[in-house]
Amino acid sequence: MSAPQITGWRALREVIHGRILSGTYPPGARLPRDADLAGELGCARTTVQRAMRALADEGLVERKRKGGTRVLARPVTRATFDIPVAREEVEATGRAYGYQLVAREIAETPHSVAAAMGLPAPQRMLRAQALHLADRRPFMYEDRWINLVTVPEIAHVDLTAESANEWLLAHRPYSRYTLRFSAANATPEQAGLLGTQDGAALFVIERCTFLGLAPITCVTALAPPGYALTTGT
Amino acid sequence: MSAPQITGWRALREVIHGRILSGTYPPGARLPRDADLAGELGCARTTVQRAMRALADEGLVERKRKGGTRVLARPVTRATFDIPVAREEVEATGRAYGYQLVAREIAETPHSVAAAMGLPAPQRMLRAQALHLADRRPFMYEDRWINLVTVPEIAHVDLTAESANEWLLAHRPYSRYTLRFSAANATPEQAGLLGTQDGAALFVIERCTFLGLAPITCVTALAPPGYALTTGT
Repeated sequence: MSAPQITGWRALREVIHGRILSGTYPPGARLPRDADLAGELGCARTTVQRAMRALADEGLVERKRKGGTRVLARPVTRATFDIPVAREEVEATGRAYGYQLVAREIAETPHSVAAAMGLPAPQRMLRAQALHLADRRPFMYEDRWINLVTVPEIAHVDLTAESANEWLLAHRPYSRYTLRFSAANATPEQAGLLGTQDGAALFVIERCTFLGLAPITCVTALAPPGYALTTGT
Repeated sequence: MSAPQITGWRALREVIHGRILSGTYPPGARLPRDADLAGELGCARTTVQRAMRALADEGLVERKRKGGTRVLARPVTRATFDIPVAREEVEATGRAYGYQLVAREIAETPHSVAAAMGLPAPQRMLRAQALHLADRRPFMYEDRWINLVTVPEIAHVDLTAESANEWLLAHRPYSRYTLRFSAANATPEQAGLLGTQDGAALFVIERCTFLGLAPITCVTALAPPGYALTTGT
């Protein structure tokens, strides 16, 4: 039987993936060398490399410079989430988006925000608290600090008309971020803003963005019960 | 001035990324054609393609077959999380991992689980409820359904000694998954199992895995206050 000819890396990825799923290459096993696989399956070695990179990106195999390729013994679920801006998240569900500035002030950051930004001490920054609405009901509440050193222009933006997030995305691309998901019980104030009950389980998204080392903004976003982030393959 | 010579795609990615950050290529802008960039920067067109693929994977640009490449006008944060098995999550924090089977039965799935598995109607499956412990304290509670049609051997596994998740990962690789994060108030029973208060805000992870179209397992994992998933770049 002559060897099958595989030209595209996607087809090759599928062949190797199939061998992992069927147990031909069991968890922890070492895969044949790229050159050997290229020979067996009649494709270019660069095609094998591209397919292996895809499998490594998915968390199925581990590539080592000298040790070749291994099937991961305990594959992690490498989940990718697209975290859209609130407007798009709302509009994707067919509801009307609304935005409402709750408060705006220039004040000293809490220590926790300075630490999240990598700053040695609290600084005076712009704080904007706002509600994102879906069909006029609270969708998400955000408490945001914006670094006036990195983004001085924000002091002159009318945040009653435009959300700080959308202004920042349009004018200040970021090169790096940190992100944290957790859950918290609503304080009475948060419950009032979100139209939910005192103590309700809120979904919490904390995100900071940076341009190089310079912090741009840190935001804590709270979503009432019913909110979920989903993904899959 | 002669054009700089760039040979590696990572260096080229950095150059293009820098132009996006500096506003040379503003949000929504069309980038030069691959061939033109290759000419300008003295590199191979395949190098441009590899760099563009990386930028597209990061959610910074959008590639179209005919329309070339655009800077995304509203970049999403494309966040990647590695969701490890509970044992590794606990051990990564330097604590001792423990596992305890709470209940095991063969019963009919709720409609919601059948639906999550893509099944037309509830089926009899193995249900395993278990606690993952960190230094002997509850770290995460899981309520898991395992499809006996896809994984008949699980009926004979001693789940008091080994968690269903670890057995499945070692013996049943999956090709596809769904994943959902949310928050929920603890019921009295959940609060008791997790050693937390009635109504505490729990972090909820719902995951189903599949081999092709065949459902393997669906699990709802609950973590007490203090749990967070973090990522960043």
